[in-house]
Amino acid sequence: MKIFSIINRSSKLFNDYPSGSRLLVLFAVSTGGMVAYSESRAPEIKDKTLESKKKKMVVLGTGWAGISFIKDLDPSMYDVKIVSPRNYFAFTPLLPSVTCGTVEARSVVEPVRNIIKKGKGEIEFCEAGCTKIDATNKKVLCRSTFENSPIPNRDFSLDYDYLVIAVGAQVNTFNTPGVAEHCHFLKEVEDAQKIRRTVIDCFEESVLPDFSEEEKKKNLHFVIVGGGPTGVEFAAELHDHIVEDLVQLYPEVEGYVKITVVQSGDHILNTFDERISAFAETKFSRDGIEVLTGCRVVGVYNDAISMKVKSTGEVCRIPYGMVVWSTGVGTRPVIQEFMEQIGQGDRRVLATDEWLRVKGATDVFALGDCATVDQRRLFDDIAAIFEAADKDHSGTLTLDEFQDVIDDILLAYPQVEHYLKSNHMMSLSDLLRDSEGNEMEVDIEGFKKALAHVDSQMKHLPATAQVAAQQGAYLARCFNRVEYCKDHPEGPRRFNSPGRHKFLPFRYKHLGQFAPLGGEQAAAELPGDWVSMGKSTQWLWYSIYAR
Amino acid sequence: MKIFSIINRSSKLFNDYPSGSRLLVLFAVSTGGMVAYSESRAPEIKDKTLESKKKKMVVLGTGWAGISFIKDLDPSMYDVKIVSPRNYFAFTPLLPSVTCGTVEARSVVEPVRNIIKKGKGEIEFCEAGCTKIDATNKKVLCRSTFENSPIPNRDFSLDYDYLVIAVGAQVNTFNTPGVAEHCHFLKEVEDAQKIRRTVIDCFEESVLPDFSEEEKKKNLHFVIVGGGPTGVEFAAELHDHIVEDLVQLYPEVEGYVKITVVQSGDHILNTFDERISAFAETKFSRDGIEVLTGCRVVGVYNDAISMKVKSTGEVCRIPYGMVVWSTGVGTRPVIQEFMEQIGQGDRRVLATDEWLRVKGATDVFALGDCATVDQRRLFDDIAAIFEAADKDHSGTLTLDEFQDVIDDILLAYPQVEHYLKSNHMMSLSDLLRDSEGNEMEVDIEGFKKALAHVDSQMKHLPATAQVAAQQGAYLARCFNRVEYCKDHPEGPRRFNSPGRHKFLPFRYKHLGQFAPLGGEQAAAELPGDWVSMGKSTQWLWYSIYAR
Repeated sequence: MKIFSIINRSSKLFNDYPSGSRLLVLFAVSTGGMVAYSESRAPEIKDKTLESKKKKMVVLGTGWAGISFIKDLDPSMYDVKIVSPRNYFAFTPLLPSVTCGTVEARSVVEPVRNIIKKGKGEIEFCEAGCTKIDATNKKVLCRSTFENSPIPNRDFSLDYDYLVIAVGAQVNTFNTPGVAEHCHFLKEVEDAQKIRRTVIDCFEESVLPDFSEEEKKKNLHFVIVGGGPTGVEFAAELHDHIVEDLVQLYPEVEGYVKITVVQSGDHILNTFDERISAFAETKFSRDGIEVLTGCRVVGVYNDAISMKVKSTGEVCRIPYGMVVWSTGVGTRPVIQEFMEQIGQGDRRVLATDEWLRVKGATDVFALGDCATVDQRRLFDDIAAIFEAADKDHSGTLTLDEFQDVIDDILLAYPQVEHYLKSNHMMSLSDLLRDSEGNEMEVDIEGFKKALAHVDSQMKHLPATAQVAAQQGAYLARCFNRVEYCKDHPEGPRRFNSPGRHKFLPFRYKHLGQFAPLGGEQAAAELPGDWVSMGKSTQWLWYSIYAR
Repeated sequence: MKIFSIINRSSKLFNDYPSGSRLLVLFAVSTGGMVAYSESRAPEIKDKTLESKKKKMVVLGTGWAGISFIKDLDPSMYDVKIVSPRNYFAFTPLLPSVTCGTVEARSVVEPVRNIIKKGKGEIEFCEAGCTKIDATNKKVLCRSTFENSPIPNRDFSLDYDYLVIAVGAQVNTFNTPGVAEHCHFLKEVEDAQKIRRTVIDCFEESVLPDFSEEEKKKNLHFVIVGGGPTGVEFAAELHDHIVEDLVQLYPEVEGYVKITVVQSGDHILNTFDERISAFAETKFSRDGIEVLTGCRVVGVYNDAISMKVKSTGEVCRIPYGMVVWSTGVGTRPVIQEFMEQIGQGDRRVLATDEWLRVKGATDVFALGDCATVDQRRLFDDIAAIFEAADKDHSGTLTLDEFQDVIDDILLAYPQVEHYLKSNHMMSLSDLLRDSEGNEMEVDIEGFKKALAHVDSQMKHLPATAQVAAQQGAYLARCFNRVEYCKDHPEGPRRFNSPGRHKFLPFRYKHLGQFAPLGGEQAAAELPGDWVSMGKSTQWLWYSIYAR
């Protein structure tokens, strides 16, 4: 099965939005790489006048967000250029498997040119990084880097009418000294390949003549910093790889091998249900994988890490053979600079509104790990909502009047739905009933009081492939329907001005989480508070994702 | 099919030596890589006294020669250590296919530890390069290199009783300036992977905005220096890759692509039958691959090569996007230094005798591309042969007397057989007949005259995988039979001293050559002056090799 078709299917599911929760197709892929096309090319007849009328769209990035966007976009409507230093899309959930050779690197990548070719062929691709976004002049500056070229770096600029930023995030070292120099990461395919070679090197070096006991122990100590899903899955894969393969090839050093997971929090997998955390910790303890919780790495040297035990404040030094750093994501410099330019300099992550439009810029959209949706607080609009609902201008709101705006409130402020759910309420109208269930008529102060806590359930979306892929599909749908929705707006009613929003705001559907734990053990958290652990989970998960 | 089993089968065939010519199994492989062992390990019970009695053998290298040797050696007889910077064996004939993604890198390598594990597990492997051979003290100095290790370079020494040198050769730049800096090679798996990336980079760079016509032309000019089988196969593979895949992905630059083969001789594939050279040149001309014969590259710069046209002496400069250098092999520094140590400093290649024993050293053997068999001239021994044959000490030799030593002559001096064949003689005894076919009785001068030209057919063996693999299998067989052959010598009679040689000398069986030419076209040269060209050749070749 090709990654392409998977994305295709998954985005088809997203397109059904906003009807009910569907599951993202994340099934493992069996092949990829450069594919030969035998069909003859269609003759290229370009209508110059038509061409020039099209709006110029530049897309930065070819990760989950960018590719999901490109896949669903109708390329005949825009003059699209993709800019990315990676000319392939990587199926990142399989990177931990690449580190141990369970899955080949080639199987987890799909060339961008294959993906855009399968569309109507109107999309251009430039292998380059974006060095600067110039929102004032609607321009991006790019730099291509080809090591073997006589001119290794080449700068060029592209004008845009619409800019879609999907450059992702970079590894977050939290400014810990030595991390960039000595640690391995699990962000790119090259990272995974490098880890694979390094593990083998650690074993090869340990069996050399004259290698001391202590050196063997050090060399075969594999440390994973960060107990999130990626770090945990890598630890589990590495354990299996060592037990099933490497110990057979290097039997003389079996007794020296050790895997340690260092986690600053109290538990590994702490974004999962706590039953899953406990299950994973038990499984790891049985496998001999040491889990050090409540420990923060404060420095990495070429042969040891330095670690602070939070409870005691004690700092200890642990020799290692290889360290994999997997502790979350940070902002890329080009985004940092852009944020300063548009007045977001004091923020940590680039903010967009619910339509994925970058705040403080025009015609710029951002999605995936490089941005965060800054949900609008209902309370900021409460006066406007009251006024809009109070049709008879009586200064008070009846339940009937309130009923009229409830649907629009639910669409515009997704936190309200979370609030109702967490308070076990059936409908927002319950807020205008007293404890006996009788209708109340409220003035503005009473209305404020009734809705005082609805914003408490505002959440930032996690930096995951699921979010990025859903955002890409959402934004493509908006661009595809922009003409139609001008006359037929499908979004909620505006409270601060007349009319309706053109589009529904983006809303994330959480489709669960999955953590392979080595062997055939895995844990999954599915929508609706389902938790599954143990031997059959992996197959349950695949069967759900493969539908 | 695993490479291992192929080598296994091919070396079984070699073991049938000296009976008749068999074909080397060189069939394409479909898999490889790290393999998991599920069998439980046998308990290791080491008999220390037995252990200490075993002779120490060090094998340098894990290419065709080294691995073929290791595969066939009985590891229970020696205390074997393999030293090589590469912990895998590479199926080098498939490297040109790796450059274009036709075959994956993983499919052409087999980890050394898998190979030695499948034996009786008595062999040790050290991932290190040999830096110095100390023949006086029977010691090799080694250096391991692990980039990511806190101690990246580590030196150690190993004592040996027997040393088997199979380190191969290195790229020969003929001291042409700029080759090492700017050219790609086709010797290692990494080289092939790098070529693959560079070809794609050349295309990606060419479609960037603001790239001039001239730059596109330069960037998409692929130059291959050397028209031997490797260069020709790569040119053909690259052509197919471009036509079948890349032109579909980068249609806008199709017109700028060009492939050029530069050959200093008058024809490409000049070690093949001339019908094959002509066929290949016609095929290339039809495909639009330019062949520049009689041209010598005199310099390589970062964007152009400088080339001298032999016939006119004119020097021209050709811009390129990528150059692949494929012009033959040179001696590694460690071998050069060893040669000086043992009095071979004035030679170009390390010389061994017919038993693969390095001349000027004791208990040192060399095989594969790093060495050459220095065939003994029959004429140097002619007096001893005459004396041995002249049993009645009459001072003259009758045909009957000569008949008695003919078999030993044929075994000891393989050039004699070539001489007979090229002169269409049935038997060596024909040399002692006059033009009417009558027997002659000759004195020493007459004998010298009759055998004056037999050494004219002495040939150096080509630096090929076939030669290396046959030598490895031959030498392993000698080591396995050393005890038996002490009492039962199987080699030819010694003429300069009493008794027989312990072993038969090494004799190469030429199994033909094969050159894929792109598309489904190929040319093969089989034993017995068979030549096959055209569409079905590839399958003929495979069918022969797969028996």
